[in-house]
Amino acid sequence: MAKNVNFRSIGPTTYLSPVPVVMLGCADPEAGVRPNLITVAWTGVVCSKPPMISVSIRKERYSHGIISKTGEFTLNLTGQAISRATDFCGVKSGRDTDKFAAMGLTPIPAPGLDCAPAVAEAPAFLSCKVQQIIELGSHDLFLAQVVDVNVAEEYFTESGSIDEEAMQLVGYVHGKYRAMSDVLGFFGYSVASDEALRRRGLKG
Amino acid sequence: MAKNVNFRSIGPTTYLSPVPVVMLGCADPEAGVRPNLITVAWTGVVCSKPPMISVSIRKERYSHGIISKTGEFTLNLTGQAISRATDFCGVKSGRDTDKFAAMGLTPIPAPGLDCAPAVAEAPAFLSCKVQQIIELGSHDLFLAQVVDVNVAEEYFTESGSIDEEAMQLVGYVHGKYRAMSDVLGFFGYSVASDEALRRRGLKG
Repeated sequence: MAKNVNFRSIGPTTYLSPVPVVMLGCADPEAGVRPNLITVAWTGVVCSKPPMISVSIRKERYSHGIISKTGEFTLNLTGQAISRATDFCGVKSGRDTDKFAAMGLTPIPAPGLDCAPAVAEAPAFLSCKVQQIIELGSHDLFLAQVVDVNVAEEYFTESGSIDEEAMQLVGYVHGKYRAMSDVLGFFGYSVASDEALRRRGLKG
Repeated sequence: MAKNVNFRSIGPTTYLSPVPVVMLGCADPEAGVRPNLITVAWTGVVCSKPPMISVSIRKERYSHGIISKTGEFTLNLTGQAISRATDFCGVKSGRDTDKFAAMGLTPIPAPGLDCAPAVAEAPAFLSCKVQQIIELGSHDLFLAQVVDVNVAEEYFTESGSIDEEAMQLVGYVHGKYRAMSDVLGFFGYSVASDEALRRRGLKG
């Protein structure tokens, strides 16, 4: 192997990026817990079949107790129009703030779940059921199965495909919210024919 | 709760996005396994203290056996300059292709690890040690501790901070590689003072 001369260590840290940044919706009406939101960036896809995602949440967060008990939550994707609300739901606690009301967001039922609310203003949301909770240190890891996904009607084209460009999705890079922009390629583009590249709007 | 009238179900699927897309480096010199790369998008941060990440890999992938045995790997962030290589390493198998050679990439030693190579052309990489493997279905979930992070010298400013804008990081949105662009805000911007917003270059 070549020598490692062009890098500088910054020590062990969570430097993976970009990562998703989404609002997690939960509630526990039996216990009188109103619809609540917490923003998570420590989340990712963990399995394709069955479709599963993970979210990591500190034990001391209000939502930790709620979803540990109810076993369900939604993940609401972040479009630019709700990026400020997404930030707000990451810095405030649901113990003393009604985040839906404070941010002018609307809780709606999530197909496949009993009580966890989705955000009507999100471009899309995933309905998730907790399967396993693993203690790791500062955060507990929730592994959950995706039981349904809903996409706002306005993003469907006439042919029934989804215009993901129009969602203006937001990613998280080392403490900053960033817009997603130009398409650089599609999965497999590095081995695609010139014809396939042209068909998909990329240079051959 | 309001009615859910503006959404359409697309069924249960891994619709979280954007997600990271990174090249995972591994090798097993004792067994004669040369430096190999596999691209993973099913990855995320799972814990802050200790810093931990997860990657999910199908059992049948070549790299699955390598990192299961050696217990270590690197995650190499994707800048636009290597997005084609990142795609290539996701569609080809290391069983029959030397992906470093095929893509003109240079394997370098990763601080903190014994044998897993990093990619010299990546803007930054994480050195990771496997702690736990959990079977989920199509994919096995590897939980790993980050033991070091290295950033290419060229991204450090004179003051020692890191110019992440210059890395031109790439995210993955439903099968497409997308550039990251404008900063919409920083963590806490929704509750920051006008003065703090101006100092960080955002409107008050």
